Amino acid sequence: MVEPATATQAAAPAVAQLKDELDIVIPTIRNLDFLEMWRPFFQPYHLIIVQDGDPSKTIKVPDGFDYELYNRNDINRILGPKASCISFKDSACRCFGYMVSKKKYIFTIDDDCFVAKDPSGKAINALEQHIKNLLSPSTPFFFNTLYDPYREGADFVRGYPFSLREGVPTAVSHGLWLNIPDYDAPTQLVKPLERNTRFVDAVLTIPKGTLFPMCGMNLAFDRELIGPAMYFGLMGDGQPIGRYDDMWAGWCMKVICDHLGLGVKTGLPYIYHSKASNPFVNLRKEYKGIYWQEEIIPFFQQAVLPKECTSVQKCYIELAKQVKEKLSKVDPYFDKLAEAMVTWIEAWDELNPTAAAVPDGKAK
Amino acid sequence: MVEPATATQAAAPAVAQLKDELDIVIPTIRNLDFLEMWRPFFQPYHLIIVQDGDPSKTIKVPDGFDYELYNRNDINRILGPKASCISFKDSACRCFGYMVSKKKYIFTIDDDCFVAKDPSGKAINALEQHIKNLLSPSTPFFFNTLYDPYREGADFVRGYPFSLREGVPTAVSHGLWLNIPDYDAPTQLVKPLERNTRFVDAVLTIPKGTLFPMCGMNLAFDRELIGPAMYFGLMGDGQPIGRYDDMWAGWCMKVICDHLGLGVKTGLPYIYHSKASNPFVNLRKEYKGIYWQEEIIPFFQQAVLPKECTSVQKCYIELAKQVKEKLSKVDPYFDKLAEAMVTWIEAWDELNPTAAAVPDGKAK
Repeated sequence: MVEPATATQAAAPAVAQLKDELDIVIPTIRNLDFLEMWRPFFQPYHLIIVQDGDPSKTIKVPDGFDYELYNRNDINRILGPKASCISFKDSACRCFGYMVSKKKYIFTIDDDCFVAKDPSGKAINALEQHIKNLLSPSTPFFFNTLYDPYREGADFVRGYPFSLREGVPTAVSHGLWLNIPDYDAPTQLVKPLERNTRFVDAVLTIPKGTLFPMCGMNLAFDRELIGPAMYFGLMGDGQPIGRYDDMWAGWCMKVICDHLGLGVKTGLPYIYHSKASNPFVNLRKEYKGIYWQEEIIPFFQQAVLPKECTSVQKCYIELAKQVKEKLSKVDPYFDKLAEAMVTWIEAWDELNPTAAAVPDGKAK
Repeated sequence: MVEPATATQAAAPAVAQLKDELDIVIPTIRNLDFLEMWRPFFQPYHLIIVQDGDPSKTIKVPDGFDYELYNRNDINRILGPKASCISFKDSACRCFGYMVSKKKYIFTIDDDCFVAKDPSGKAINALEQHIKNLLSPSTPFFFNTLYDPYREGADFVRGYPFSLREGVPTAVSHGLWLNIPDYDAPTQLVKPLERNTRFVDAVLTIPKGTLFPMCGMNLAFDRELIGPAMYFGLMGDGQPIGRYDDMWAGWCMKVICDHLGLGVKTGLPYIYHSKASNPFVNLRKEYKGIYWQEEIIPFFQQAVLPKECTSVQKCYIELAKQVKEKLSKVDPYFDKLAEAMVTWIEAWDELNPTAAAVPDGKAK
């Protein structure tokens, strides 16, 4: 059995690295009591809370946290008609938080994730590990058998080309989960009692050309490097699909990182995932995705971005075009999604004007 | 600090899986006292010992092991002029053992590798884990974030295409090393005291299209699936290079596995690597490889095998042709190596006639 860490308040005060350069984005429909356990690690940081569902409901945030909160009314007011690209009644709404942030880094976590313990029993500061992952390079062009060569006690092994040892900038750090694994509904139904108890002490770069299922539960990224690719799609209310928001973002993001020469890491840190969601509800949300993904994944595996795509935005607009061309035949939903992808980029650029685009010439 | 397991004799008697289908290949220049520690795990298996260096020297093998031993005179006698493809004064000679084996599986280990302990202090039966790796499928087409989905307590995560969950046959299992890491000479010189103490409890498939540095110290493979690609090249006596034997095999093997749809795993099991080799000697052996690999690796990354290459042998002959065409400009050595690759396949086919090729129509 694995158990969450308790009494993390007694944890040594963490050094709050990147305190002024990182926002924590939390999508939620409930009071954020779970933050109590994260207090020693999160309190120095700014939180962006994206309230999903009924905007008239009040979400309680424990005292002492610095936060801004957006509900659906706020999203509609800020984005106007472009708010149509932000999902409702689905945690995909979290990507609105990525858009309004003004920081370089984002860490996003679900509100049913608690502090996990390492094998020695020590509470894991997940955010600290994500920051380590993001601040050290990635190695997407050749696999290092001792995993992350930049970790203490590790290096590049014999036979690793010296020309590749500088690595490339890391855009994304994908963390894992102890206790409830992130399974699809069919696997949940077949293995209701399975718990992840295996602590794998590794961080590794997902090689160039390889896709993976990115889970949004415990995820960090460099917003300046890859932010506009982190769109969580159209899910939930009024949509034919749910639970593919993070997958969609992961596939788009990985194709773009591969094209731009950016790195994606997975592995540490673990969080403790407390409660399995209802597999019957999940099955209803997922079932279209389960057969659509058989066509979506080959699409992304074969997607090629032209050389002219030199920014994340350009890459993303090009991907939207290809989605429209090649996936609309799977379902008309992809037409709508492709349009929402374009709207997302327009909204992103509106909220994040670059130096060139700001009329008075002042960069943010 | 990590330490090797001691008193493994007290280990629970291992179930000797695949006892009649697996040979253990050991290249050596010294008495094989190291086998004492491996006795509970290796004794049920047949050993193929390839004696390197002076053939007049007697190698002592501890009592109770079932083995055959080949020295240079044996290799010359068995292969005749084709013995030129087998390296001398280099552990690359081990591949002769792969060729004379009549078994389906090979495990090869260096004689300075001891039994490692897992974090609970239990002696690790490396061979048992390799067998597990080889007998369960690989997943080269999509990355599973919980690592090997076929391990107990793990599965495919949400977003993993169901059409890929059967996996593909596993051809190679690459194990790792605690204590002395497998570093090149420059890294050894810069970090003389570095020890690998991190036990990473994972097995993973190296994705299709990704190359890695395969180390021959602790390696198992399915000889029927991939044997003829496991040529360790021309190294050592009379050659301009050493310590790239396993790397060469790894690059060739991976390109062929990717072409044929076979899997390659890395991770568990660990062995305890006892003694660092002399970095100054290593530097002399390696230095050409260190700059050659900057051209060799892009060559292998771009190598494409035509559809007609439907067997490992055909793939390997085609690769030899491409090596001659594209790497000879790096150094005339690659001309010689390309020829040795062809000789190796000829020798392999001579010692391993298939049903079709045997005049009296009897398969082995």
